[in-house]
Amino acid sequence: MKPLNVSDIGEQELLRRLHQFCPPHLVGDDAALLAVDPEHRLVVTTDVLIDGVHFSVGHASPDTITTSPEDAGWRAIAANLSDLAAMGATPMAVTVGLSLPGHVPVAQVEGLYRGMQDCLSTFGGVIAGGDVCRSPVISLAISALGQVKPGQAIVRTAAQPGDVILATGVHGASRAGLELLLSPDCGVGVSEGDRTALISAHQRPRPRFDVIHLLHNLNAFDSKRSLAGMDSSDGLADAIIQICRTSGVGARIECENLPMPPCFSSWLSPEQAIDWTLYGGEDFELVLCVPESVGRSLVDRLSTASIIGTITVQQEVLLIDSSRSPNEVPLVQSRGFQHF
Amino acid sequence: MKPLNVSDIGEQELLRRLHQFCPPHLVGDDAALLAVDPEHRLVVTTDVLIDGVHFSVGHASPDTITTSPEDAGWRAIAANLSDLAAMGATPMAVTVGLSLPGHVPVAQVEGLYRGMQDCLSTFGGVIAGGDVCRSPVISLAISALGQVKPGQAIVRTAAQPGDVILATGVHGASRAGLELLLSPDCGVGVSEGDRTALISAHQRPRPRFDVIHLLHNLNAFDSKRSLAGMDSSDGLADAIIQICRTSGVGARIECENLPMPPCFSSWLSPEQAIDWTLYGGEDFELVLCVPESVGRSLVDRLSTASIIGTITVQQEVLLIDSSRSPNEVPLVQSRGFQHF
Repeated sequence: MKPLNVSDIGEQELLRRLHQFCPPHLVGDDAALLAVDPEHRLVVTTDVLIDGVHFSVGHASPDTITTSPEDAGWRAIAANLSDLAAMGATPMAVTVGLSLPGHVPVAQVEGLYRGMQDCLSTFGGVIAGGDVCRSPVISLAISALGQVKPGQAIVRTAAQPGDVILATGVHGASRAGLELLLSPDCGVGVSEGDRTALISAHQRPRPRFDVIHLLHNLNAFDSKRSLAGMDSSDGLADAIIQICRTSGVGARIECENLPMPPCFSSWLSPEQAIDWTLYGGEDFELVLCVPESVGRSLVDRLSTASIIGTITVQQEVLLIDSSRSPNEVPLVQSRGFQHF
Repeated sequence: MKPLNVSDIGEQELLRRLHQFCPPHLVGDDAALLAVDPEHRLVVTTDVLIDGVHFSVGHASPDTITTSPEDAGWRAIAANLSDLAAMGATPMAVTVGLSLPGHVPVAQVEGLYRGMQDCLSTFGGVIAGGDVCRSPVISLAISALGQVKPGQAIVRTAAQPGDVILATGVHGASRAGLELLLSPDCGVGVSEGDRTALISAHQRPRPRFDVIHLLHNLNAFDSKRSLAGMDSSDGLADAIIQICRTSGVGARIECENLPMPPCFSSWLSPEQAIDWTLYGGEDFELVLCVPESVGRSLVDRLSTASIIGTITVQQEVLLIDSSRSPNEVPLVQSRGFQHF
């Protein structure tokens, strides 16, 4: 039997099916009503994802599809939730603006929403409505809402000389996972377990709310200063450079401490491994600049975290590699994806 | 000189230019931080607008362009703010997810944002960030945030038998304005002033926050019940039918009280005038179901408002026209725009 397309069921039936992914008390009126805890600030962020640019559901041939609709939905939500985690916030809700052509199978749309719901069930938050409309290309516009107490927001501008720079996990894993999906024959030396972990890092990234909870448990937020940080969605190098630029400081990054998946050493050349670690992007880890005592406590309790450098007064971001000459090279500006 | 396109300036410069439309303290981090008044609920709504479906900026030939970039921006924000007004909320902020091809002139994008900012300056709220990405078609995904005290939210489900049905302004004006733009030779009997007003209703619709303020001044919100209502973005008939369906009630609408622009009588056949008034859509007025005393007070103070019918126990929505046979006809289901 031919699978049902969106144009077979029409807008009303599509909306009815999609409402099943939303709590009933939040949808059906002109807008959703949500409670924000008193004394909290609202945190809001928006991402737009386009089929063929950020994911490939609607148009690719089967052998180039790297993302199932479920994974695309998960990733879209994870990317937004990661922005909330990067502000130190806890998630409340998202709204979803979906544009798509009529010939998209209904099962794909439901898969997309199932993936979004899975991610929200795992990390917190609900789909609080949105909009659906016809377009030549599938796109998802997601706004995520969270909340944070004012003194506990993590901001890009707060890095101070003497802070340690901490990465909450390895980088380059998502980039490596994508490579394994695109070219399954590569990564010959990579074990089955590592392979699965890298692919999962690409398909099912996990925003680091666990780190935020841990920072609270460690009483890392005090009234004297804000913690600094952002997520590494556009790459580790981009995160470090952006924090330094907005804070008016510099950084020294130890090349030997770059947080890369251990299997890179048996698979990639040192240059390739460093490149993916610094510029791969989409690992959705947090890059934090905190007092050394906070950094040490966090590393003690979080096995994935590592201290990779320090913040300096000099406004240069340097990569230090004592095995090479010169020992210090400036970290180059983001090679992150440019849309235009 | 050839006008600059988005791809001529690149993503970073585009973002820098668009940030000038945002308050500086709200952009530049992973997400925006906003204060919500204690004791208030957050109200959130999302709309997606596609060039060629909801507006025509990027692709139409000059003689079919009915919307300048500034007007498209204004309309996009007005549509979202109208959803906030329909909940009885006051506006706080919007986020804007913009997708567009690289060949769009930068001046068009800036015009779009200027129109959005104009509308927000007029009715309240700021652009609190968003996202920009490349896409084959221009689309705008707007999420609007507002706030309302819990007992003062206007909801679709609260209509009660005996309530009067009130329209806050005329309907069909936006549809008529579009017609005048598409066929400037039509509407021969329509005065210059009326013509301007109808076109303005289409290009620069005004969300009815003034009505919300007036309801507060009239102490119309009491603890015993919620007021019922929604906006008429999908047409007057659609609003009445949706309120009745979700409230489990019916309605009697007096045909002679249908709120239409006076100039319709000298321009359109009675059938055409009624059709545009009931089904034209995009007037962004409020349709309220309130106790008769509240309705009378509102009409006394608001010259554009009129009482058009009453809510009944019988779950039918009837249009009453004593000059015809039969006198009563069921109002048909929305002929509002179907996306699929």
